[in-house]
Amino acid sequence: MRTLGIGLIGTGFMGRAHALAFRNANAVFELPARIHLAALADADAIRAERCASAWGFAHSHADWRQLIENPQVDLIAIATPNHLHHPMAMAALAAGKAVYCEKPLAVSLDQAREMRDAAASAGLVTRVGYNYQHNPIIALARELIDSGELGEIISFQGEFSEDFMADADTPWSWRCDPQHAGGALADLGSHLLALARHLLGAVEAVCADSHTAHRQRPASTGSNERLAIRVDDQTHALLRFANGCRGSFSTSWLKHGYKNHLAFEISGTRGTLAFDQERLNELRLYRPHERPGMDGFQRLLAGPTLPGYAAFCPAAGHQLGYNDLKTLEVRALIEAVCGMPGPGPDFAEAYEVERLATAIRLAAREQRWVEVDEL
Amino acid sequence: MRTLGIGLIGTGFMGRAHALAFRNANAVFELPARIHLAALADADAIRAERCASAWGFAHSHADWRQLIENPQVDLIAIATPNHLHHPMAMAALAAGKAVYCEKPLAVSLDQAREMRDAAASAGLVTRVGYNYQHNPIIALARELIDSGELGEIISFQGEFSEDFMADADTPWSWRCDPQHAGGALADLGSHLLALARHLLGAVEAVCADSHTAHRQRPASTGSNERLAIRVDDQTHALLRFANGCRGSFSTSWLKHGYKNHLAFEISGTRGTLAFDQERLNELRLYRPHERPGMDGFQRLLAGPTLPGYAAFCPAAGHQLGYNDLKTLEVRALIEAVCGMPGPGPDFAEAYEVERLATAIRLAAREQRWVEVDEL
Amino acid sequence: MRTLGIGLIGTGFMGRAHALAFRNANAVFELPARIHLAALADADAIRAERCASAWGFAHSHADWRQLIENPQVDLIAIATPNHLHHPMAMAALAAGKAVYCEKPLAVSLDQAREMRDAAASAGLVTRVGYNYQHNPIIALARELIDSGELGEIISFQGEFSEDFMADADTPWSWRCDPQHAGGALADLGSHLLALARHLLGAVEAVCADSHTAHRQRPASTGSNERLAIRVDDQTHALLRFANGCRGSFSTSWLKHGYKNHLAFEISGTRGTLAFDQERLNELRLYRPHERPGMDGFQRLLAGPTLPGYAAFCPAAGHQLGYNDLKTLEVRALIEAVCGMPGPGPDFAEAYEVERLATAIRLAAREQRWVEVDEL
Amino acid sequence: MRTLGIGLIGTGFMGRAHALAFRNANAVFELPARIHLAALADADAIRAERCASAWGFAHSHADWRQLIENPQVDLIAIATPNHLHHPMAMAALAAGKAVYCEKPLAVSLDQAREMRDAAASAGLVTRVGYNYQHNPIIALARELIDSGELGEIISFQGEFSEDFMADADTPWSWRCDPQHAGGALADLGSHLLALARHLLGAVEAVCADSHTAHRQRPASTGSNERLAIRVDDQTHALLRFANGCRGSFSTSWLKHGYKNHLAFEISGTRGTLAFDQERLNELRLYRPHERPGMDGFQRLLAGPTLPGYAAFCPAAGHQLGYNDLKTLEVRALIEAVCGMPGPGPDFAEAYEVERLATAIRLAAREQRWVEVDEL
Repeated sequence: MRTLGIGLIGTGFMGRAHALAFRNANAVFELPARIHLAALADADAIRAERCASAWGFAHSHADWRQLIENPQVDLIAIATPNHLHHPMAMAALAAGKAVYCEKPLAVSLDQAREMRDAAASAGLVTRVGYNYQHNPIIALARELIDSGELGEIISFQGEFSEDFMADADTPWSWRCDPQHAGGALADLGSHLLALARHLLGAVEAVCADSHTAHRQRPASTGSNERLAIRVDDQTHALLRFANGCRGSFSTSWLKHGYKNHLAFEISGTRGTLAFDQERLNELRLYRPHERPGMDGFQRLLAGPTLPGYAAFCPAAGHQLGYNDLKTLEVRALIEAVCGMPGPGPDFAEAYEVERLATAIRLAAREQRWVEVDEL
Repeated sequence: MRTLGIGLIGTGFMGRAHALAFRNANAVFELPARIHLAALADADAIRAERCASAWGFAHSHADWRQLIENPQVDLIAIATPNHLHHPMAMAALAAGKAVYCEKPLAVSLDQAREMRDAAASAGLVTRVGYNYQHNPIIALARELIDSGELGEIISFQGEFSEDFMADADTPWSWRCDPQHAGGALADLGSHLLALARHLLGAVEAVCADSHTAHRQRPASTGSNERLAIRVDDQTHALLRFANGCRGSFSTSWLKHGYKNHLAFEISGTRGTLAFDQERLNELRLYRPHERPGMDGFQRLLAGPTLPGYAAFCPAAGHQLGYNDLKTLEVRALIEAVCGMPGPGPDFAEAYEVERLATAIRLAAREQRWVEVDEL
Repeated sequence: MRTLGIGLIGTGFMGRAHALAFRNANAVFELPARIHLAALADADAIRAERCASAWGFAHSHADWRQLIENPQVDLIAIATPNHLHHPMAMAALAAGKAVYCEKPLAVSLDQAREMRDAAASAGLVTRVGYNYQHNPIIALARELIDSGELGEIISFQGEFSEDFMADADTPWSWRCDPQHAGGALADLGSHLLALARHLLGAVEAVCADSHTAHRQRPASTGSNERLAIRVDDQTHALLRFANGCRGSFSTSWLKHGYKNHLAFEISGTRGTLAFDQERLNELRLYRPHERPGMDGFQRLLAGPTLPGYAAFCPAAGHQLGYNDLKTLEVRALIEAVCGMPGPGPDFAEAYEVERLATAIRLAAREQRWVEVDEL
Repeated sequence: MRTLGIGLIGTGFMGRAHALAFRNANAVFELPARIHLAALADADAIRAERCASAWGFAHSHADWRQLIENPQVDLIAIATPNHLHHPMAMAALAAGKAVYCEKPLAVSLDQAREMRDAAASAGLVTRVGYNYQHNPIIALARELIDSGELGEIISFQGEFSEDFMADADTPWSWRCDPQHAGGALADLGSHLLALARHLLGAVEAVCADSHTAHRQRPASTGSNERLAIRVDDQTHALLRFANGCRGSFSTSWLKHGYKNHLAFEISGTRGTLAFDQERLNELRLYRPHERPGMDGFQRLLAGPTLPGYAAFCPAAGHQLGYNDLKTLEVRALIEAVCGMPGPGPDFAEAYEVERLATAIRLAAREQRWVEVDEL
């Protein structure tokens, strides 16, 4: 069996999530390649070495360019701040290596387009970390939609809200920087846009309203200096899908009570389904029953009949966790690199997500409907 | 104690709901007047008489104009098809009688404006049957908002969806007639708009998207004749409130699984509350806790600490029903007629609801943001 | 149409609940008799008169014996403290009048037996106010059980918990008096036992554990005097039904968070259903699906397909309230009095409920399994 | 840092769960030892070798006795059929090695006692795989109980139901063999008993009712031969805890709709908490509020404020999965082996769980209350 050398850049939350997933994937799944944790990079050489040791990587680099050039490395995983995705991915593609990049693809639509085009020219496999799409129960949702079991799809209502910025005294961070893909729409909303496209296809036109409720934040915790905030705290939008479905979209990082409320309801002429990432192992499904009154929303629990679930656990109701979704993502990645096409957005798809987000920003700024093709 | 003669026009679902509420109100509440069921009108004289007998009305009329002129009648309750609200209310006001009219106020904004102006000129008490506002737990929601316990209110997400028109073979009815205030927005959405205004005040600007998914329906059950549908099956909108709150709105009568899903989430800088009419005795409330992690949405159950609840039942968790909300509405009505001002939209407020709905329709038709004051 | 004169004894919470139901029943349902609110009795003559006036009763009595003798009165409704049920019902039966008695039937099994026998000898219609049985969605539960749709029924888990006595400083009341059918088992638990029998039939044997957590309570609010408590705060039991079903039972009036948690799960070889009175318009139902993984508990919402619901409201999801269940109970009562047999426990059935509760008390006291037929 | 050689016996579902946890633990947590996957044993030598390769074990053995003797192995993990726990653990202890054994500890109370005594004599660290106890949110539950925040604990209601044996045609398996710790009580119920003891301490007396609904099952899938079933399909019990708390307990593997319904409600004089393993990242908590009516069950979501959670994910609401609980269990194991005492049942505690289960079986068989100390 082929061995695939992984080079991971980044040692933060997402870096470790990648590392765990790469460590697990061969034990959980039967994969077409053996994963070799070849190298880990972090600008902090000591941290790079310590994490490499703890996570089982063979080598560490302080310079990510060296990692990319490392001949043991076949696949570059990028889990760094957003503004570094573009140079790292471009360098990796130039080096002829497959790229697995965290979302968002880039911090500008121009960057994203360059990355898409470079991947296409290079003919290399790329994947972008919209990990929520790899949830087995999302595969069921998509099957119910694609098979026509829900009839013609006519409405989508999606929301991704959290509350980690709800307190006006939560300080400025790179997430507040428009140059780093900051703001609720870019940080959270893009997950929902990716999911909407995954399930329902392209969006043709949008109208939107963005709002910054906390217009200043402390420069750092406890600081008296206050920085102006130029990114959105919340964005509401209307979506028109190419398939005729109409929808609403909202995202906020101020909405008290929500911690990971990536939720949607999709309704068709023959039924409705609903999902909330805060209960990621459940799908609510309604289909009318031939006996009136005997229908109601059902709570489906993820179980081994769903693709990928049984590899973690043979019994329903035992639940996958956040990190398991990452392992599922890595499975799709490895299979794709080995020539087995499968699910998961590549750079071309991630570019479309960025384009859609950009259209929403434009619609909010100009207070008008925007055709996504304007961009 | 003063006796107040009630004249009720209409014997359908809403007519009976009115009758039950008028029958109950004196036994449930200590009111400033004794309700006398003076007269009931229905164009079908036999039905009028039969219902009057069953419901306890002293007289019946086949001609509603006679009911209005009946000297035993002090207050006119209108529970007829929407296009009749205007002539009946105008006649009642001309006769110097208080009016309790079902929603929507009228079938056009011009009619609604006339009714508002006539009520103002006459100096008579009016009320419009947005009964959901009289839910005691909605009073709690409003108190939490008005008191500042939720902080500055920054987002509203509202939906009123049902599925009674989901089947494309459900035949045409007056609800499909744009001349009769048909369509999901007018029929269902107006309840949500009234509630949004009740809780958060005026809306300044809207953008909207309306959609007719089933463009034809049978002329009647089983008929081969198909009529074109010109009203909306669903409408999504963005709302900007005068207080700075941003919101989204959606309404549908096609959304499978929902039977009375008049629901909202209102979020402020210090908390979030959520409500769904399908569980009308519950309010979900989130407020951050000083100990991180010890906060979560709470399910508050209606009980005797809420205004009006204890008159029905002295214990929490025993639940009010749909008809009880109507009894609460009648209480507010009787008190208002007796000079005790209280909650409940009058013609002036109901006109504002119509104006807002009209702005949404305009925004959807012209595909642009509309300032409500344009109308 | 026959007129039926109602004589109601009691003006407390339950008295008013009866009054409301009698006022409503003819307007909600087409009944075989016209209800006449003939007389209301309360030992406090002024209160009797005031309530009679407010609730629409023609006469008032300070002496309940006079009410029973009142020739305008055909049916005696008893909504008084528990220890008065026996003398009042016995007198009513002796006077040849039908009796509608609040639960529990009596404060001792001997009393209950006498009442049962007197009713049988007199050949009169009796009903006991286990109003929760009249919930239309409970009729659906029973249909699902009786029809075999759930297969052979094998387990019952029932709980009726509230928290109104949770505070150790809540003072002594008649509910704490064993001579007045005090204690959680008698006050709350009997509702659950009645419901268990209604749904699943007779219980053959029981084992139980009763517990008094707050062994003293203030004599009255704020009093320093403390009275010993000799009734149960909570009782847990095991039940063996005659049909082979096994079950557990618990009741508490100390259980924080519950306001009206009369809940059960009934499971058979082909499905499970679950109910909670705190959401009285919902039934949760699980049936396995031919496609594994596509099954999950469904939330059925009460609607017009259920017997009795449409009389209140023609649309699903609009919800019945607590008082509506009482109106449904009165419908069954009036029909029974008019010779149309229908649902609702009579004295014979209510005696069986008392016998079962007594068996549970005995099992708890003697710490052994008890056959109900021992009593 | 010390290296700890792991020897794992068993390659089924639980074997792999162990393997994944051992692979993950060093990357997730900072542990006092480095885990070395030294050896894997399975009676099927080919399978042993294949799994060792896939899961990253250095060696494989077909004979588990060789694995125990392997000098690279410091710690023996036992994930084999229940009847093998005793000989393997005894051999491991005899070899002076720490033991991590899957639940239940043994297939008889005598075996369990021997294992407990051998562990005590050897002075070796032992742990038993009641993994649900390692859920961070269970630590919160225990803290709320131990700190007195819920007041004096007075009631426990626990249930562990699944439905994987609900179909009468599901064939006989070792789970149906009383010699192999078969039956719902041993297979599922023991998890709940372990959890009850973990949270509330010792149980003093029990009464119980066991029931076999499907008295025969096919010898194998599709077989016409039917074997008699001598283990329980469901058991209900009453529990009396040493701390005075009273409780009910039920377990079933026939209860349609439940997949992993290990659930409890624990109520004290100042609050109630509720948990369900089917939503393992949530705890429902009720505490009375100083303003009446402003209290209701809260849904707390697991997050980084809970011990152990942040190592998987820094944000609340992202959710741990089933396998993460195993990783938490391994952390506690490794720490204990390294001399850092921590949570998790050892053989002495697991013996007490077996003793309690045995008392329940005795109480059911003899239909009487049983003091646990009788055994």
